[in-house]
Amino acid sequence: MDRGERSSGAGTGAAPKQVCPHFQGAVELIGRRWSGAILYTLADEGPLRFAELKETVPGMSDRLLSTRLKELESEGLVRREVLDGPGVGVSYSLTEKGASLKPVMGSLTDWAREWHRA
Amino acid sequence: MDRGERSSGAGTGAAPKQVCPHFQGAVELIGRRWSGAILYTLADEGPLRFAELKETVPGMSDRLLSTRLKELESEGLVRREVLDGPGVGVSYSLTEKGASLKPVMGSLTDWAREWHRA
Repeated sequence: MDRGERSSGAGTGAAPKQVCPHFQGAVELIGRRWSGAILYTLADEGPLRFAELKETVPGMSDRLLSTRLKELESEGLVRREVLDGPGVGVSYSLTEKGASLKPVMGSLTDWAREWHRA
Repeated sequence: MDRGERSSGAGTGAAPKQVCPHFQGAVELIGRRWSGAILYTLADEGPLRFAELKETVPGMSDRLLSTRLKELESEGLVRREVLDGPGVGVSYSLTEKGASLKPVMGSLTDWAREWHRA
């Protein structure tokens, strides 16, 4: 990470540059309550139906799961597909953009297992 | 990621296993509003004083920055140090645990630059 132009005086005193907005947008998107869990499950087990997804995260309400899925769909991370066959069925899976988060989730899982005993 | 014991029937129908609680705890910790930005800045520019940190994230209030710093300190990611010298001074930096998040933040930054134009 380069520091670009900044005033002299290392550490305190110099004006720090602003945080990368792409990073901030991404971390707050996947870090929203349950969003990371939904992405993790779909990466690992998708495609899944709504009820199956709900089982993977204890304590998540139908309403919140539905809201999060719509957000992730609108961000292009999750694909919603109506299933053929008898009865009504909808499945959720990761898009290419969503699947490209797998290395990030893997690296965060490794960190969490080592450092962050939840 | 192994699937462990599960009923037969790939995709829909089988019971998915529950999401890794370490991953979920970690992603929601760093994804909390401004937390990722604070960690990113301290990784890149720390140690920093409160006012310097505040400059790096436009729109963040003193109150919220203070709350987030206390949370990150209590999680063992951020170290608060009182500076010697004239006047009152406090600086914030990453602990070893916080610094070990750098590869995760790097991998998320790469993803965000490629996929998530904020």
